[in-house]
Amino acid sequence: MRTLHHFWLCPFSRKVRIVLAEKELDFELKFEKFWERRDEFLGLNPAGQVPVLVEPDGTALSESGAICEYLDETFSAETLLGPDARSRAETRRLVAWFDLKFYAEVTQNLVDEKVLKRFMNMGEPNSDAMRAGRQNVGYHLDYIAYLADRRNWLAGDDFSLADIAAAAQLSCVDYLGDVPWDSHGAAKDWYARVKSRPSFRALLKDSIAGFHPPHHYADLDF
Amino acid sequence: MRTLHHFWLCPFSRKVRIVLAEKELDFELKFEKFWERRDEFLGLNPAGQVPVLVEPDGTALSESGAICEYLDETFSAETLLGPDARSRAETRRLVAWFDLKFYAEVTQNLVDEKVLKRFMNMGEPNSDAMRAGRQNVGYHLDYIAYLADRRNWLAGDDFSLADIAAAAQLSCVDYLGDVPWDSHGAAKDWYARVKSRPSFRALLKDSIAGFHPPHHYADLDF
Repeated sequence: MRTLHHFWLCPFSRKVRIVLAEKELDFELKFEKFWERRDEFLGLNPAGQVPVLVEPDGTALSESGAICEYLDETFSAETLLGPDARSRAETRRLVAWFDLKFYAEVTQNLVDEKVLKRFMNMGEPNSDAMRAGRQNVGYHLDYIAYLADRRNWLAGDDFSLADIAAAAQLSCVDYLGDVPWDSHGAAKDWYARVKSRPSFRALLKDSIAGFHPPHHYADLDF
Repeated sequence: MRTLHHFWLCPFSRKVRIVLAEKELDFELKFEKFWERRDEFLGLNPAGQVPVLVEPDGTALSESGAICEYLDETFSAETLLGPDARSRAETRRLVAWFDLKFYAEVTQNLVDEKVLKRFMNMGEPNSDAMRAGRQNVGYHLDYIAYLADRRNWLAGDDFSLADIAAAAQLSCVDYLGDVPWDSHGAAKDWYARVKSRPSFRALLKDSIAGFHPPHHYADLDF
């Protein structure tokens, strides 16, 4: 059996979970308190971060981008990268946009402050960071709307890893009730389409002790 | 003609320069003061960052990972990723290690503090950051030595994008004289092998106004 070492509100773990589900691969989830830096876990990934995917033969793969590319290459019936080199460059540009820019400007400021700090006993959330996160999310929703207005999915005609990377980040922020969907109709329409995919279902059932999602989180018709 | 919009001591621009040279592609370098956020440049890359590669037909590609994968797929005579999916996962894991972890722990603390801040008129370098950068570089040289002791190149038998990503970061720090080569012989031996490749030569001729590299920077026998 495949095992994914993850953290519930880690957007990179979520990205890999969606890709595994899109590829219709069975896997077991193992919650890793990665900040405790267990020796056994560092043996799997010396960077000490989730996600780590352990393949059925015991090979450990780490770093979410490397894992997603590996899964797409190995189970390539329907690629999530794009049909040609230029499309793949656009998909990967957008994956980096959400993995790096959205993460640094939004997810870290909200999820890390509100959730990770409590798990790690690192004190109260920083209110300046949370304010910045709530302000930045609007710019990113505008960019999603801009792309969705011009294309069928974010990177082009087909659903791709760009949609998955974006939705993985947004789903974490949405779990905390911090996405202003009502004032961003076009981004909401795109997210509703992602959310209704079977690959997204497991994420909507997540429940983290001490943090209850808002009612609309699991609602496909939010 | 291909054009690469870059910044001299940007490790991600350097990574793309080495890949272009490994693929024996001609290109023109255009220095971009990306922090000025010129409208024309934002039109090429809405993230406002270098590198941006403009292809001969005018297509602009941005985000260094997407550009390198594009070049490797398009000019694939000798791949820089690896011969199979597992090797490519290891290459990409290490590329992320250097692009994200080395960059955040070392390059940002040294290059951004000493060089970018001066270009951007952002005041004096932060001495705590510089101290952290100088301390962290040692851990990364140890990791390079660990890998080079077990493999021919960092990701396996063949020279790959992992070596390029690592050397691109280190070359920026080395330009400032902040790499303790003498106490890290194994990492130095690996770097000497990368440095002697023809694809690395142009980087060794770089000269940034106001910042002179140490004598050993361009010396293949340092």
